[in-house]
Amino acid sequence: MAGILYLIPNALGPGELDQVIPGPVRALTAELDYFIAENAKTARAFLKGVSLTHPLGTPLQQIEIRELNVNTPASMLPELLSPLRSGKDAGLLSEAGVPAVADPGADLVRLAHAQGIVVRPLVGPSSLLLALMASGLNGQSFAFNGYLPTDANARATRIRQLEQRSRQEKQTQILIETPYRNEAMLLALSATCASQTLICVATDVTLPTESI
Amino acid sequence: MAGILYLIPNALGPGELDQVIPGPVRALTAELDYFIAENAKTARAFLKGVSLTHPLGTPLQQIEIRELNVNTPASMLPELLSPLRSGKDAGLLSEAGVPAVADPGADLVRLAHAQGIVVRPLVGPSSLLLALMASGLNGQSFAFNGYLPTDANARATRIRQLEQRSRQEKQTQILIETPYRNEAMLLALSATCASQTLICVATDVTLPTESI
Repeated sequence: MAGILYLIPNALGPGELDQVIPGPVRALTAELDYFIAENAKTARAFLKGVSLTHPLGTPLQQIEIRELNVNTPASMLPELLSPLRSGKDAGLLSEAGVPAVADPGADLVRLAHAQGIVVRPLVGPSSLLLALMASGLNGQSFAFNGYLPTDANARATRIRQLEQRSRQEKQTQILIETPYRNEAMLLALSATCASQTLICVATDVTLPTESI
Repeated sequence: MAGILYLIPNALGPGELDQVIPGPVRALTAELDYFIAENAKTARAFLKGVSLTHPLGTPLQQIEIRELNVNTPASMLPELLSPLRSGKDAGLLSEAGVPAVADPGADLVRLAHAQGIVVRPLVGPSSLLLALMASGLNGQSFAFNGYLPTDANARATRIRQLEQRSRQEKQTQILIETPYRNEAMLLALSATCASQTLICVATDVTLPTESI
């Protein structure tokens, strides 16, 4: 019988695992000895964090961690699932937040379904969801759009598209940006959007969000 | 100084609070004595669940719970926030999952921002997010569309719109349905969508999802 693929959330910042990951999720994680993660080094740091409250069932050095990230060719995915086909449970880990949302894990999950492997998502923090909750913007209809283009003209065009959709469909539009481009993005939003368009900026989802 | 509006997640089903709500979230909840909830009775049941691991700072009978649901007129919202303006912290509770996403709380959160009240979202389960994680469908671009029309023709038209958008924009389309309409919705999806369109059904997000 095939193993189970657990989708294990990570904290959004350092030193807060027990604040945001339910105890039973950490307990289950501590029992696994095979992980698929974006980065093996940070996955080990995560497991060290888990071990502070839930001793690992297998010594950290003997836990197998294989990497799945933007550099992983699609042809490697079946190999990552091969221990599951032999009956071993596995944990899919994200660098931050929940796996398979705004990270490279979704393709692996889809292949797991195709191979009859049971997938179990576990509860933890998602920056997108926390930002949406705290924004006060429409939570009955919303879309996540990832990163916008970095070219100024293409970015302005995309902002106008998203603003139009937010108005026509009353659909909240969510996007993410890297810290060093935040200021440029904010300037572009305020230069491009109409004055009645509401914008919410979650600069740090471990802190209160700020409306502008 | 104004109080803080905490957004407190609820479990997705009975008897699993400590499985899905981090301990520190339950600890913080146990200290509050003013809640805004969709239904006072189920809010009291939630607080009883919290008290199993974290004794309440105020006896349950003395905790104030005011209702905010689809029947609440917008003119009532300022009154719900008045204790916060006097310095009291409050908890906004959902019937299931996280507040202000697919529930009536977002308008209150927006008003809180307008009144300079700090809003803090807390970590817990979201059926939408768990379903998306476990689906294996695109998590880099997705939209939540709430309920579809119940009229068969209008529903088929909407399904075709969403299918077209999923194909043109590679954007996962999420919708919800009430249990007694699940079968009709599934039949409508399979009758309307192209054979290459992937559909994932999360019948119970506390159990593994199923692909069809």
